[in-house]
Amino acid sequence: MSSPRAETAHEQRPIIIKLGGEVVGGPVGAAVAADVAALVGQGERVIVVHGGGPQATALQKALGQEPKIVGGRRITDADTLDVMKMVVAGKVNVDLCGQLMAAGCKPVGLHGASSAAVRGTKRPPRVVSGGGPDPIDFGLVGDITGFNRELLDLLGFAGYVPVLACLAADDHGQVLNVNADIVANQLASALAASALVLVTSTAGVLRDVKDPGSRLRRLTVAEARAAIADGTVTGGMIPKLEESIAVLADGRVGAIHIVGAIGVGDLVRELGDPGACGTALMSA
Amino acid sequence: MSSPRAETAHEQRPIIIKLGGEVVGGPVGAAVAADVAALVGQGERVIVVHGGGPQATALQKALGQEPKIVGGRRITDADTLDVMKMVVAGKVNVDLCGQLMAAGCKPVGLHGASSAAVRGTKRPPRVVSGGGPDPIDFGLVGDITGFNRELLDLLGFAGYVPVLACLAADDHGQVLNVNADIVANQLASALAASALVLVTSTAGVLRDVKDPGSRLRRLTVAEARAAIADGTVTGGMIPKLEESIAVLADGRVGAIHIVGAIGVGDLVRELGDPGACGTALMSA
Repeated sequence: MSSPRAETAHEQRPIIIKLGGEVVGGPVGAAVAADVAALVGQGERVIVVHGGGPQATALQKALGQEPKIVGGRRITDADTLDVMKMVVAGKVNVDLCGQLMAAGCKPVGLHGASSAAVRGTKRPPRVVSGGGPDPIDFGLVGDITGFNRELLDLLGFAGYVPVLACLAADDHGQVLNVNADIVANQLASALAASALVLVTSTAGVLRDVKDPGSRLRRLTVAEARAAIADGTVTGGMIPKLEESIAVLADGRVGAIHIVGAIGVGDLVRELGDPGACGTALMSA
Repeated sequence: MSSPRAETAHEQRPIIIKLGGEVVGGPVGAAVAADVAALVGQGERVIVVHGGGPQATALQKALGQEPKIVGGRRITDADTLDVMKMVVAGKVNVDLCGQLMAAGCKPVGLHGASSAAVRGTKRPPRVVSGGGPDPIDFGLVGDITGFNRELLDLLGFAGYVPVLACLAADDHGQVLNVNADIVANQLASALAASALVLVTSTAGVLRDVKDPGSRLRRLTVAEARAAIADGTVTGGMIPKLEESIAVLADGRVGAIHIVGAIGVGDLVRELGDPGACGTALMSA
């Protein structure tokens, strides 16, 4: 069945690029799109993952709903899930695909209900940090159990760039809200990505959060652990780094790059010269 | 490159099933999903097209926007287009794909910005019936110029059911609002569909709109023209029939079935026995 070319494409380690809701759309989206086009032009296989949290919160408020976020995670009732469908699979995904088309890419937007592109299972109630002593029922929130690799390979082999909205579905088609960082991390592990790029609103890991010039360019896992332990890294960057360390633990993912609000070319530069535009985290 | 099986799949005439916004979701969506699963199980290639007009109008009102509809078409400014992205590519597409998954299908939701799955160009201002003497600028509304057949074939060959939201994109990634009936009609022509099924809120073409028992089971194009001319067919069914007659004119589409709020099995029955559950329109 498979031609040698198919083997190569199927076995090629992809680059996973994750855009947080805080940077998707606007100039960062356009810059990422231009760089995805350049990477695809170099023969790379790219998969894009995106969130849409701030946009969902804005729509909830516009519709008179009260967002409920506990321990950084959104409690998702049926109305909230509908907002996530509208914002993440709708507005954000369509706009990002439009930007990728404008840059000359061949994007295909996917949500979980597209044959479980992202497969999940409803998260059982659990005690969370910041959520008090009792187990929290997050409602229609999913834990990721896998990906539709056949579909991702089919599209990637044909030169398409899958653009994954952070919605999962279980095998019965029940749609579940999932966190885009977790989608990106687990996808990178599952596909043994050559690189995982996390595009955020901060310019990598900074010694001094007020000074972009204090960026740590390259970190081994041991150095990242030390930076957390000695207080060099603070605030919201701690869980991000801890998650990245966990992703690198099994040795399947080549490197993780945390990059900030970037311009055209920065992402290509970062991948060619880790640390050039962000913080590159490597297992050793 | 192509195996014999690929040739067959690529050349297989698909069945196009269009669900209007007024019937998508709920029990009709579930019934259609079950029948799509049955058809795919019989070896048929199926593509689903859906609208979301009433849902878009509801969201516009919830957000305090004033829907502007002239001559049956929505005037689409940037805010309106965002609503269409949210409703059609988001909520409606995700829910319909979820129903198809629940029925055992392998759906893949697609919007126009998915590599111009539906390709369009911005409609120039034009005089429309019901819109007064001056040309109406519909804003970000598209006329369809084509489809990404490579992508539709790729998915169809692999057993996936493309589920097209009625949004187009031009080659620069500009997203455009398009009418789901027109998408379905033109897609049926472009792919030489064996059948086009229009699932609506009325049980086919009725002699007496108040009497579902007065359904015309089968019509040739000549009979349909006569039924319009002699007043047998009235109201909103006239443009639907006229569009269907136009689709059949070039002889590429096998038959068009107009069916109403259906139950499980009705769609399979209608395709096997035209007129069994709706009105079947055939070129001769």
